[in-house]
Amino acid sequence: MKIKLAKNYGFCFGVKRAIKIAESAQNASTIGPLIHNNEEISRLEKNFNVKTLEDISQLEGTQKAIIRTHGIPKQDLEFLRSQKVDIIDATCPYVTKPQNICEKMSKEGYDIVIFGDESHPEVKGVKSYAKGRVHVVLHVEELAKLALGSRIAVVSQTTRKIEEFKAIVNYLITHYKEVRVFNTICNATFENQDAARELSKEADVMIVVGGKNSSNTKQLLHIAKEFCQDSYLVESDRELEEGWFMGKELCGITAGASTPDWIIEKIIEKISNFKV
Amino acid sequence: MKIKLAKNYGFCFGVKRAIKIAESAQNASTIGPLIHNNEEISRLEKNFNVKTLEDISQLEGTQKAIIRTHGIPKQDLEFLRSQKVDIIDATCPYVTKPQNICEKMSKEGYDIVIFGDESHPEVKGVKSYAKGRVHVVLHVEELAKLALGSRIAVVSQTTRKIEEFKAIVNYLITHYKEVRVFNTICNATFENQDAARELSKEADVMIVVGGKNSSNTKQLLHIAKEFCQDSYLVESDRELEEGWFMGKELCGITAGASTPDWIIEKIIEKISNFKV
Repeated sequence: MKIKLAKNYGFCFGVKRAIKIAESAQNASTIGPLIHNNEEISRLEKNFNVKTLEDISQLEGTQKAIIRTHGIPKQDLEFLRSQKVDIIDATCPYVTKPQNICEKMSKEGYDIVIFGDESHPEVKGVKSYAKGRVHVVLHVEELAKLALGSRIAVVSQTTRKIEEFKAIVNYLITHYKEVRVFNTICNATFENQDAARELSKEADVMIVVGGKNSSNTKQLLHIAKEFCQDSYLVESDRELEEGWFMGKELCGITAGASTPDWIIEKIIEKISNFKV
Repeated sequence: MKIKLAKNYGFCFGVKRAIKIAESAQNASTIGPLIHNNEEISRLEKNFNVKTLEDISQLEGTQKAIIRTHGIPKQDLEFLRSQKVDIIDATCPYVTKPQNICEKMSKEGYDIVIFGDESHPEVKGVKSYAKGRVHVVLHVEELAKLALGSRIAVVSQTTRKIEEFKAIVNYLITHYKEVRVFNTICNATFENQDAARELSKEADVMIVVGGKNSSNTKQLLHIAKEFCQDSYLVESDRELEEGWFMGKELCGITAGASTPDWIIEKIIEKISNFKV
C-alpha cells in the first residue's frame, strides 16, 4: 500500500515559523499558549525550556518573552519594551500586515472597520494599532448601527471566510463613497481543505490527524468522507487499527492546523509497519 | 381630480445644471448634443442660440464651447485650451469626481479599473485622466484576463447598476490584496424609479412622460403598471385622451430622464383643463 500526504496539511506557515523561533530562543516564555496543542507545548517546554505565561502580568522573572503568532496589543508591546526583557517577536507576518494597515489608515484619517471577533487576541492586537475611530464587526447587520465617516478602510481577521468578508464590503460600498479594502484573510485553512479534497478523490483510505474537538480537523474529516468513505479521524498513532488498511492501495494523510509534524511522522511509521 | 408629481422625475441634477449653464451662456456651441431630446435642443437653439457640434473638429468659428455633462477627454480639453475659445464647463460634478480619482490614483501608482462601457463618452473622458495602467470592464468575466498590479483603484460609470458594480468589486477583493473602491454611481435614475413606484401605489391613473424609445422611460411605465393598471406613456400633451381620467381621483405624473420640465408643464395644463 502506498502512503501519500496531502499537498497542504497541518501547521500553517506562521505557526511553523513561530515554533522554529521558540526552539532557537530556548529558555524563553511565550505570552499566551503558542499553539492549541498541549503535546506540542509540553515538547517545547521539555526540550527547549519554553514556558507559557497566561499574560504579561506574569512577566516577572522572565528574561526572554516570545510574542505568539496572534500578536499583542500595542500597549502591551510598549509595556514589554519598558521592562528588562528581550522581546522575541513571532507575530505572523500575515497579522503584522493588518496591524500596519490599521496604524497607517487611521493616521490618514480613515474610519477603520475590522471584520472579526472582538474577543480574539489577534483582533485585540490589530485594533490597538488604530488611533482614530475603529469598529470591530462580526456580522453585516452590525454595520447599519454605525455612523462612519466618508472614507473607510476595512481589514479582516486572518482566519475569517471570504464570503462573509464580501458581505461586509458589499454593504460598505453601497453606503459609503470611498472604501479601501485590504483583504488580509490568510488562505492556509482553505488550502488544507482543498488539498484534503483532492487527495481523498484518489485515496481508498484517508487518515485525518488532529484533535477530536478541533473544528478545522472535523471539517477536514467531513471533506474527506465526501469522496472517500473509509476516512478516519485520529489524535495519535495509538488509535490506528490495522483492519482499516486491509486490501487498500492508497492511504491518504492530512492533518488539522494544530497538529505538529512529529505526530504525523509517528502515524506514517505505524501505518508503514502494518502487514497489509 | 387631483394631480400629483412624483417626488423625483425627469432631468437629473447634472442635466438641469447644464441646461441652466447653456441658457446663460447664449450664442455658444455644445460639443456633442447636450441631451437626448431633440425638442429641448431645438428650444435651446431657438431661444438662446445654442448650437450643437458633433465634436471638437467642428470648432472653427465657435467663440464659446460648452462641455456637456459627460465631460470630454483630457486631450480634447487641452486642445480647446490651445484655441481662441471660451470654455464653459458643464461637466456633471458626479463625472468630474471619477475623472479626479483616476488622475490622483494613477499618479499614486494604482492600476485603475473603470466599470463601464468603453464606447460611452463619459467613460472615454474618465479613462483619459489615468496616466498609468487603466482598464475598462463591463463584465466581471473580463477581469480574469487582466494581469493587474497589487494595488487597484476602481470607479464606475455614473449610470451603472450597483449590483453589477458589486460583482466587479467582489472579484477584485478575492484576487488582489488592496482594492480602493470609489462608488461613483449616481442614484438619479433609481430615485426616479423609486418615486414612480411610490406614487403609482396611491394614484388611480399614471402618466409617464418621455420618449417611446427611451429605455429609462419604458422602465418607469413598467414600474407604474405594477401598481396602477391605468398607466400611460406619452411623448407630448397631444397624445392625452380625456377618457383616461374619467372618474379618477388622483392622477400621478412622472417623466423619463431626458424629458424637460416645460413638456411636463404642458401635460399638467392639458389634464387640468379636462372636464372630468
